[in-house]
Amino acid sequence: MIVMKEGATEEEIAHVIERVEQVGCSAHVSKGELLTVIGAIGDRDKDQQLSLEGTPGVDHIVPIAKPYKLASRQFKDGADSVLEIGGRKVGGANFALMAGPCTVENRDQMLASAKSVAEAGATMLRGGAYKPRTSPYSFQGLGREGLRLLAEAKEETGLPIVTELLDLRDLDDVLDVADVIQIGARNMQNYSLLAEIGKSGRPALLKRGLSATVEELLMASEYILKEGNENVMLCERGIRTYETAYRFTLDLLAVPALKEQTHLPVIVDPSHAPGRRDWVESMSLAAVAAGADGIIVEVHNDPDKAICDAAQQVPTSDFRALSSKVESIAAVVGKTVSRA
Amino acid sequence: MIVMKEGATEEEIAHVIERVEQVGCSAHVSKGELLTVIGAIGDRDKDQQLSLEGTPGVDHIVPIAKPYKLASRQFKDGADSVLEIGGRKVGGANFALMAGPCTVENRDQMLASAKSVAEAGATMLRGGAYKPRTSPYSFQGLGREGLRLLAEAKEETGLPIVTELLDLRDLDDVLDVADVIQIGARNMQNYSLLAEIGKSGRPALLKRGLSATVEELLMASEYILKEGNENVMLCERGIRTYETAYRFTLDLLAVPALKEQTHLPVIVDPSHAPGRRDWVESMSLAAVAAGADGIIVEVHNDPDKAICDAAQQVPTSDFRALSSKVESIAAVVGKTVSRA
Amino acid sequence: MIVMKEGATEEEIAHVIERVEQVGCSAHVSKGELLTVIGAIGDRDKDQQLSLEGTPGVDHIVPIAKPYKLASRQFKDGADSVLEIGGRKVGGANFALMAGPCTVENRDQMLASAKSVAEAGATMLRGGAYKPRTSPYSFQGLGREGLRLLAEAKEETGLPIVTELLDLRDLDDVLDVADVIQIGARNMQNYSLLAEIGKSGRPALLKRGLSATVEELLMASEYILKEGNENVMLCERGIRTYETAYRFTLDLLAVPALKEQTHLPVIVDPSHAPGRRDWVESMSLAAVAAGADGIIVEVHNDPDKAICDAAQQVPTSDFRALSSKVESIAAVVGKTVSRA
Amino acid sequence: MIVMKEGATEEEIAHVIERVEQVGCSAHVSKGELLTVIGAIGDRDKDQQLSLEGTPGVDHIVPIAKPYKLASRQFKDGADSVLEIGGRKVGGANFALMAGPCTVENRDQMLASAKSVAEAGATMLRGGAYKPRTSPYSFQGLGREGLRLLAEAKEETGLPIVTELLDLRDLDDVLDVADVIQIGARNMQNYSLLAEIGKSGRPALLKRGLSATVEELLMASEYILKEGNENVMLCERGIRTYETAYRFTLDLLAVPALKEQTHLPVIVDPSHAPGRRDWVESMSLAAVAAGADGIIVEVHNDPDKAICDAAQQVPTSDFRALSSKVESIAAVVGKTVSRA
Repeated sequence: MIVMKEGATEEEIAHVIERVEQVGCSAHVSKGELLTVIGAIGDRDKDQQLSLEGTPGVDHIVPIAKPYKLASRQFKDGADSVLEIGGRKVGGANFALMAGPCTVENRDQMLASAKSVAEAGATMLRGGAYKPRTSPYSFQGLGREGLRLLAEAKEETGLPIVTELLDLRDLDDVLDVADVIQIGARNMQNYSLLAEIGKSGRPALLKRGLSATVEELLMASEYILKEGNENVMLCERGIRTYETAYRFTLDLLAVPALKEQTHLPVIVDPSHAPGRRDWVESMSLAAVAAGADGIIVEVHNDPDKAICDAAQQVPTSDFRALSSKVESIAAVVGKTVSRA
Repeated sequence: MIVMKEGATEEEIAHVIERVEQVGCSAHVSKGELLTVIGAIGDRDKDQQLSLEGTPGVDHIVPIAKPYKLASRQFKDGADSVLEIGGRKVGGANFALMAGPCTVENRDQMLASAKSVAEAGATMLRGGAYKPRTSPYSFQGLGREGLRLLAEAKEETGLPIVTELLDLRDLDDVLDVADVIQIGARNMQNYSLLAEIGKSGRPALLKRGLSATVEELLMASEYILKEGNENVMLCERGIRTYETAYRFTLDLLAVPALKEQTHLPVIVDPSHAPGRRDWVESMSLAAVAAGADGIIVEVHNDPDKAICDAAQQVPTSDFRALSSKVESIAAVVGKTVSRA
Repeated sequence: MIVMKEGATEEEIAHVIERVEQVGCSAHVSKGELLTVIGAIGDRDKDQQLSLEGTPGVDHIVPIAKPYKLASRQFKDGADSVLEIGGRKVGGANFALMAGPCTVENRDQMLASAKSVAEAGATMLRGGAYKPRTSPYSFQGLGREGLRLLAEAKEETGLPIVTELLDLRDLDDVLDVADVIQIGARNMQNYSLLAEIGKSGRPALLKRGLSATVEELLMASEYILKEGNENVMLCERGIRTYETAYRFTLDLLAVPALKEQTHLPVIVDPSHAPGRRDWVESMSLAAVAAGADGIIVEVHNDPDKAICDAAQQVPTSDFRALSSKVESIAAVVGKTVSRA
Repeated sequence: MIVMKEGATEEEIAHVIERVEQVGCSAHVSKGELLTVIGAIGDRDKDQQLSLEGTPGVDHIVPIAKPYKLASRQFKDGADSVLEIGGRKVGGANFALMAGPCTVENRDQMLASAKSVAEAGATMLRGGAYKPRTSPYSFQGLGREGLRLLAEAKEETGLPIVTELLDLRDLDDVLDVADVIQIGARNMQNYSLLAEIGKSGRPALLKRGLSATVEELLMASEYILKEGNENVMLCERGIRTYETAYRFTLDLLAVPALKEQTHLPVIVDPSHAPGRRDWVESMSLAAVAAGADGIIVEVHNDPDKAICDAAQQVPTSDFRALSSKVESIAAVVGKTVSRA
């Protein structure tokens, strides 16, 4: 949709129409009292070649068609996708309560945390073996040893495992253990990573980049879906704003906005935005009330001794109360925590 | 707290210490392995005169002391302020459900909306007689006639009135009717308005500016409190971010962050950020779950015919269900809707 | 322009058309392969009443017509407004170099600073008698005494005076002295202030709010222009973003973007965004190169002793070099500093 | 630096000191009138394990030490790094004028564009063989064929080649041709990519992520520098803000801010932020005036027919004038365009 300036000349309008037709679109002209609007009707890729911003007489361009297809709610005729992961459902009326430590640190920590969250009602177990760190001098995760401990924790608790993949060269190792592959915020637009996870067919939890729009998150999911992998969950985890009173601004409006546009389940990470554990319950409950299909919470058996993100990990001793309130609020909004 | 650069010279350090002492502060020097940090101890106003950013050898300045006093939780020894407005309490375990139309349009609309929200459980009635409009060509509110209709609606329903003041010249008229004077986001830093409302002693609902920090909101409240008016409620209403899928990003993390710093009640406006009514319930419930002390919702008896903000006003027919879910979630987080 | 969802039903489309016609607009329907777009043609105020966001079948709304009229470049048939202030021109090929201290502090400081900037080539003198302060406990300006000193500085140097008005109750006092009334960023949407300055007819320098869009700045100027006052300059002064390495992010792209849309001169304030004097020259020169019609720089005869914003005030001793580079770069982009 | 709350108890203070000492730091306590500040002195990694946010009595944490080392200006004792690339210098008083098309499209386009920019005074040639695209359905670049055409253009013009690497699997192919490997904004935190480019030793142009802070950009460069590759240039290319009048907000304050902190050259990309060619000259000149060490401009021999980003590519016919103004402004700020 090309909006012409007030006072655009007939030549300028004719030139734009010519450009529209050159790329194989048809031009649909509406003349209003003040200004003329030209619709370019054709497929999206053709539109994109137009690039008419700044052309004489053109005021601005408004893209109309959604750039994503497979992720759109229309693609499923308005229905919700319901994923099944290790016997737990996610989506529709099914709520997922994912919990576990930020990082796998050692056997005792991992197993103690895993058992506690399982007993308190978690439906999946999270834990990082590979950690993206801002500093090259920080602890980068236990790697394969971490994956091995996650496998052991899964055996003990029966909980499906959610763990992050950072580097394609570790894909096979991660596929040996992960029920859900997490794609971190910094990799949301790492397209080769997305495509390979798409090809693997393994369920994916795709985190929103820290300044990604709702539409860009959907576009990124399209890279996975396009390879035939329909098992994608989207995850709001806080965006970057001017506010410095917390690490990120948790954007819960993204929950209804995403659910309107897509059939994919929407998960919320209530831990990273506050960056401190005493605000995690508040954001967990708000996420449930906002209509999320699940939350993924950092829980640690002894957070004061955690190697990374100690401040934001909820102690296992507090997680039972949180889990119970999550269930109560889920009930108010018509959802049930889905257990095996 | 002045952080010197690595490699700052002794002369540069001595010069900073001299400047600190010149303004009447005492300098407290900590030398670490890599760098030196100089604390300027004294009262805040003296610190502010320092302005050492960019001085040779200085890396950056970190303000330490809070710039607000009366709004701080310490000022009430950690307790919550509980306001009493027309027999309804706000704060502590008391939840306020404020509802009503965006704008007073005419007698029928105002009375019909007022009665409906009263019956559905609202505890206060909102309605605008003066409207801040981005365009000078838009409807600017009914003014005094609007205030008169609010008075009539109050008489009919018994609900206390929340209404906005835009211009000091209308203060006396607004004081005739308002139980709570609303200060809109665009006026959060209109200091003469804040001071006069402070002097009036009337309860105030101070909305966060659309790019104000949590700290700036508290500073603005200080302008009211300083005049001896303790009846201030703060209101999160969405901040401006890069996301264009909604009008504003509702920042619910501000709720626990504010409640940690201040004794004042924290209200959430769930209507303006979505800008469309089908997302208002989701944000209302999320606000309750996040720990807000109240919400202020736009509700209209026939929103499709509303003069302004039609899209975001919830029809009175849907408000009863919303009100009932609000009560259920309030109970989960230990609060009760406070009625007369 | 109402964009319907893919898969919107015929009923939904018919309902939207009905709503468009109800408010007195005519509906212009374009059916594409995937989706239908409905143009509402009529005057802007009617469109605004539509508020169809969230209506069944509606995906989103795209406003097309500009909401401002008098500020638009079309209103002057594409020409630039050239203001004449105390014999200096601003706009077109004429560049304004406004300089002076942040705040009027005392007679010696004001006169010394004024003479220095005059000798170094400034074309107008700035200085604040009323200061908007985040904290109610900070120095709020000398008030009338400050205005008196500005008058004296004008008499000495012949430079026109730029000074800020904060509160309508001080309008007459400010009009006695000011050649240009500055409206600060926090008051950009203080509509009663804008309207009264509009009525006064005095040239106005309207600063962009710290999270105002280019369009909102133009809308705010419309409040002044609408009262018959054509002497408006717009001022970019830095916007609020996530970056904390400086106080604000100076948005120099606003310069060509504004100049495309409006005939009004565009000024840049290079002092507040850096917040420290050693980056002010860099931003001053960048503003000139970007095509600004003027800059307004904080310059102080002894900045280390300044009462407020000491860090960002350039010493008069450095201002001559800055002024000379400004002239050189102005010449490269086809402008001349306009002196009496 | 741990800032305790006003009113923190002695027990709370003692507990924090104990935690600081447990991780191997020493605690340095400053008691002010209102509050206590505890400095944790030790190496940065130890500090990070502390994670005391939200601990009882703690108000907030202020990191003091810079997290980067090799990128810091102190590391070079305050000097500027001057890179030498194919006989052209970048850094110090040497300015780099990089230009060329967004994407390599075909032989004619590439060679025509290359010759034109060379004749007009460009010092390096840019062109993309691999393109990061938001949509999986968009053109992804010519790949190896694009690299081959770049090699041919280099042979014809003698200009060093700047081209982007997206996927580690293409590293060897890119190393065959590139004099400078560009790392795009979306990959700024793709740590395995950074480390491998570090190991390659090839000069790198690292673009700032679209919501990365100045500090995060420096941290990302550290991943390259740490592998022994000192040839890193940083590139400001516009950040994401709330403003929608342009694609990104070009943040020219990042230029002096980066140059204060690092010895590495700072380049500006003036093309992506405007997203339209008629604003590129304005931003190019502003970048030079702001003190950048180079700019990288998209220039195309026939931009209306460009496959991607057509709107923002400057026609070669306009580039000569731009190049000439760049030289004039560079001279004003003490720099010279460095040619072979």
